Amino acid sequence: MQTTPISQLGEFGLINHLTENFEAKNKSVIKGVGDDCAVIEKDDEKYFLVSTDILAEGIHFDLVYTPLKHLGYKAVVVNLSDVYAMNGKPLYITVSMALSSKYTVEAISEIYEGMKVACEKYRVDLIGGDTTSSLKGLFLSITIIGEVAKEKVVYRNGAKPKDLICVSGDLGAAFMGLQLLEREKQVFIAHPGASTDLENQKFLLQRQLKPEARKDIVDIFAEKNIVPTSMIDVSDGLSSELHHLCKQSNCGAIIYEDKIPIQSDTYEMAVKMNIDPVTAMMNGGEDYELLFTISQNDYDKIKDEPEIRVIGYTTEFANVVELITKGNNKVKIDAAGWKAFNN
Amino acid sequence: MQTTPISQLGEFGLINHLTENFEAKNKSVIKGVGDDCAVIEKDDEKYFLVSTDILAEGIHFDLVYTPLKHLGYKAVVVNLSDVYAMNGKPLYITVSMALSSKYTVEAISEIYEGMKVACEKYRVDLIGGDTTSSLKGLFLSITIIGEVAKEKVVYRNGAKPKDLICVSGDLGAAFMGLQLLEREKQVFIAHPGASTDLENQKFLLQRQLKPEARKDIVDIFAEKNIVPTSMIDVSDGLSSELHHLCKQSNCGAIIYEDKIPIQSDTYEMAVKMNIDPVTAMMNGGEDYELLFTISQNDYDKIKDEPEIRVIGYTTEFANVVELITKGNNKVKIDAAGWKAFNN
Repeated sequence: MQTTPISQLGEFGLINHLTENFEAKNKSVIKGVGDDCAVIEKDDEKYFLVSTDILAEGIHFDLVYTPLKHLGYKAVVVNLSDVYAMNGKPLYITVSMALSSKYTVEAISEIYEGMKVACEKYRVDLIGGDTTSSLKGLFLSITIIGEVAKEKVVYRNGAKPKDLICVSGDLGAAFMGLQLLEREKQVFIAHPGASTDLENQKFLLQRQLKPEARKDIVDIFAEKNIVPTSMIDVSDGLSSELHHLCKQSNCGAIIYEDKIPIQSDTYEMAVKMNIDPVTAMMNGGEDYELLFTISQNDYDKIKDEPEIRVIGYTTEFANVVELITKGNNKVKIDAAGWKAFNN
Repeated sequence: MQTTPISQLGEFGLINHLTENFEAKNKSVIKGVGDDCAVIEKDDEKYFLVSTDILAEGIHFDLVYTPLKHLGYKAVVVNLSDVYAMNGKPLYITVSMALSSKYTVEAISEIYEGMKVACEKYRVDLIGGDTTSSLKGLFLSITIIGEVAKEKVVYRNGAKPKDLICVSGDLGAAFMGLQLLEREKQVFIAHPGASTDLENQKFLLQRQLKPEARKDIVDIFAEKNIVPTSMIDVSDGLSSELHHLCKQSNCGAIIYEDKIPIQSDTYEMAVKMNIDPVTAMMNGGEDYELLFTISQNDYDKIKDEPEIRVIGYTTEFANVVELITKGNNKVKIDAAGWKAFNN
């Protein structure tokens, strides 16, 4: 029997491989596997959006530095982000959890407390769940259901050449927050008595430990009557997400280093830790910003929005993603998204 | 800080404790946590049903004797069963999986192959998923979405005193299949060279390893125009499920030992293994039969159905569940459902 290690396919290759033989049985499935959410028929006016994520201890989070309440909050937020990435409104979540006997009721309650805060802030209902024991570690899987007006749903595959590529907020902060936490963890392991120094970097730490989802951007789209031509959320890093948009839209992209939004805290910490700030912006994941394309005709509607930046444009050259550096060099960018299975 | 072990609350107590402070935010939530499925508004005529289950290696399944393809099949079936228990029609599933690096692509493909067979048989679409690595073990969480006509939805809380208590198929077989597999596992551990003896018990093994969900019973309800007054699926054993129905319907139950359906293979294996057949029927889980109550007026509609048995009736004595034995003794039955956290 053949034995192929999972790392050979990578996360996306694996999901494609596993789901390619499933044929659609219900014509109410508008879009199955392959976007931020599945899209199913709700009624004459709306679609339901469905997405699921699983977080595993030691892979997605490290309880040495992740407060349980923040973990619960973040687990909800990463799912909300998938619904916003379809231009939708999140409505309900279900929660599956497996945890070893080392967790007490009080510990699990902390996780639920964090989920509750997120549910209240984003007006989402917890409608179901299942909790079981595990032999080792904590696993948290959330399924989210949202809705979107049929004429407003945004997929990854709608970008046309010469659309404007935009990104919300700023990039690389969650990645630098993680570097900082990992550095202090190493110090702590080497010198258990030493006091850790998180340098008062509240912004970076919060972006890693308690990120937010960009409901405000979807609200701007509604208010300004914008329907992006394509959209995805930045969970695996800008390079990776841009490649997803280009591949599914059958186009290319040119983006400008000097236009990619980065906070000064992020930039300075990268320099201090000898990390190229471009790497933090391009490859750093977990920002949960929205990456989207709009028609040039919509430029006036977003040009004064402080939370939206145009970082480049799409081209007709399928899957060619290029970065114009500050020094005006053109660099080809690979899809170097975070590959969970290589960790 | 207080530290309460999870086992002190049990699985149901834990879920109640964790979710009691969540307030409903969307009025489209008809029923949240607390039944086989959550019920949400779909359109003027229908509700969506949503349920989620998580299976953990070493807790819910043992890969020593569980073929991966069967595991995938069963993982889907247990979710289908929750939708049928609301008198609904399953439509879509999402799959979350976490697995350690010991699993190859071929192994995961086997699991998906089993899920695919179940999806095809029950006409369900896989619409999304997430796959990640785990430090140890395999975790499989499935969320199912189904639908039901508003006037046909059946909850756990609708039984009235003097309704008839019915059960589909037969009980205890999955439990005896498990005992057989566990016995042979112990033989195999003690004497690695010895050949195992599963006694050609295909029926018992299949009920444990590759159970089916009772779509046929829901079809009978539709055909005969029956809407049960309450319903639940038998996943944790008849005693436990009867207590759930009684508690939520605020009634009691009297059932008759000689009316509880048990297959001769199940009965004989129980006797052979020195297990009281009543224990197998009452406490053995994973049968995925449907336990439901109907109005006495509907008796004629089901009395000739070979797959439906009337096993007793409901009473006005809240939470009092009694078994009339073959010797005509009345025995009070506790809610001795399978408690995952005590294992």
